[in-house]
Amino acid sequence: MHVMVIGAAGMIGRKLVGKIAEDPAALGYDVGRLTLVDVIAPPTPEALAPIASALALDLSHEDAAGQLAARRPDVIFHLAAIVSGEAEADFELGYRVNLDGIRLLFEAIRKEGMREPYRPRFIFASSIAVFGEPFPERIGDEFMTTPLTSYGTQKAISELLLADYTRKGFLDGVGIRLPTICIRPGKPNKAASGFFSNILREPLAGQEAVLPVDEAVRHWFASPRSAVGFFVHAARMDTARIGPRRNLTMPGLSALVGEEIEALGRIAGPKAVALIRREPDPLIRRIVAGWATDFDARRARELGFVAETSFDEIIRIHIEDECGGRIGPG
Amino acid sequence: MHVMVIGAAGMIGRKLVGKIAEDPAALGYDVGRLTLVDVIAPPTPEALAPIASALALDLSHEDAAGQLAARRPDVIFHLAAIVSGEAEADFELGYRVNLDGIRLLFEAIRKEGMREPYRPRFIFASSIAVFGEPFPERIGDEFMTTPLTSYGTQKAISELLLADYTRKGFLDGVGIRLPTICIRPGKPNKAASGFFSNILREPLAGQEAVLPVDEAVRHWFASPRSAVGFFVHAARMDTARIGPRRNLTMPGLSALVGEEIEALGRIAGPKAVALIRREPDPLIRRIVAGWATDFDARRARELGFVAETSFDEIIRIHIEDECGGRIGPG
Repeated sequence: MHVMVIGAAGMIGRKLVGKIAEDPAALGYDVGRLTLVDVIAPPTPEALAPIASALALDLSHEDAAGQLAARRPDVIFHLAAIVSGEAEADFELGYRVNLDGIRLLFEAIRKEGMREPYRPRFIFASSIAVFGEPFPERIGDEFMTTPLTSYGTQKAISELLLADYTRKGFLDGVGIRLPTICIRPGKPNKAASGFFSNILREPLAGQEAVLPVDEAVRHWFASPRSAVGFFVHAARMDTARIGPRRNLTMPGLSALVGEEIEALGRIAGPKAVALIRREPDPLIRRIVAGWATDFDARRARELGFVAETSFDEIIRIHIEDECGGRIGPG
Repeated sequence: MHVMVIGAAGMIGRKLVGKIAEDPAALGYDVGRLTLVDVIAPPTPEALAPIASALALDLSHEDAAGQLAARRPDVIFHLAAIVSGEAEADFELGYRVNLDGIRLLFEAIRKEGMREPYRPRFIFASSIAVFGEPFPERIGDEFMTTPLTSYGTQKAISELLLADYTRKGFLDGVGIRLPTICIRPGKPNKAASGFFSNILREPLAGQEAVLPVDEAVRHWFASPRSAVGFFVHAARMDTARIGPRRNLTMPGLSALVGEEIEALGRIAGPKAVALIRREPDPLIRRIVAGWATDFDARRARELGFVAETSFDEIIRIHIEDECGGRIGPG
């Protein structure tokens, strides 16, 4: 099987490729060829060098989609996007990459299929940003998508296209609505959601972190390991079981910031907790107040998608996957 | 005010223009200029000749949208679409007109506004085809849009764009999700939904009509007069009351085919009812089984949109508006 990862240089893309390198049977079939795509040439793990090729491509360029479809991958993971803040600040760029980029690719696949039968599995990274407040206490699988950002709008439109192209038999799509990924590895960044990870990752490494909201804030989480698991499962599963509603809210953990901190205390002790500095930020508080807090992701669970059920688990996964199993300053 | 009607040659477009001709104060402001647009030059009522201009334009052509936005209408009614059956049969045509056509126009409006401040009221004809089965018994205002046709997908995407362009201040959009319009004037056509109108309109005119489904079929209706009323109300209303969820399921009447026939009997007598010939059609039965049957259109009702509450009313409106108040062969 020929597997293509678009957005292979990003956080989840790299982890997904790492998973295939570490466990070649992860997808349930032999990966005979791997094409890694991103705006910069993505890194290739050494173990995959014999089967992998890395491509630097801007997907919003009109010929890029055709180049990718002409390679006829059997499975396409699409993880590439202009992120929320940037898509909001640059309206044209967001639509060009997050909407036109996807549509050009869908069209290139459809046209490749007119040349010679072709129907790849297409796994699309969507987001809970497709939802917009006001929300019910728990968002069910039948709740409408009324995004309040251009990013969320672009994801919701891509979901609709994915479902229609699937219905028409042009591809075999699965849309994966990711929770907020926690603990994000790396350095603290300026994303409004960054603190959810910062207040765990930094203290675990012996560093201070800033908490800009109060402990009663609730949000929806899954670990990077779960995110990779969602994509792997979507590549393996029998998609006939999904039916025509191809976009699935992934399972996750609904938890309070206070519960994050309690889990940190249990695992790393009060010294780690003491590294969290409260610094209320009205702007971040207001942004976060508009985010969904809880989902009843029943369909995805029934279809076999799995996430964490406690923050202890999320923290332990971070320690295993990012810190070589050890707590404290590197 | 400068009012533009795109799709002015269609059934609702013509009736909307007729309403403005008949009652120049209908929109709540003086219509000083009227631009009527369609793929063929739309007819202009004599009373409007001094202020109206008719344009024949193909909206999927790239320069058409710019031409329209350059005229800077204050209010745009957008009623133009490739219909459901055709959009399903011709995938490329449906996306070109129903999606690209709208998006090019939104973009032209945004760019016109960059040149000089501009934010027209934009009233978009959407459809209950944005919903796809399985349905709850009554579809609420928060039910998701998972269309099962390309036409429904194109309408759902246009709704998302309308909301995002409104949120960003590029236009002031209202999406009007129309029920099935009944009684459609004119000749019986081959649309799968045609029989809902045929079994009333034809017997009222002393003609036979075919009923391809059984009397227990339930569906969602509004008269052409109500449809015009929805658009007029959307042009007059204070849109600040709508909030960011700009696409509204219009009120309608949920009724059985059997209730249509009973109303016909009450108004036109048993001879009219006897003109309905039962001719079960398994294909039409199957198509209709996938359609929504009932909505709780609470938001639109609260915002002042009004429709019929009985089939007697729907039939009487047809007799008044289409038959000069008389029943029987012309």
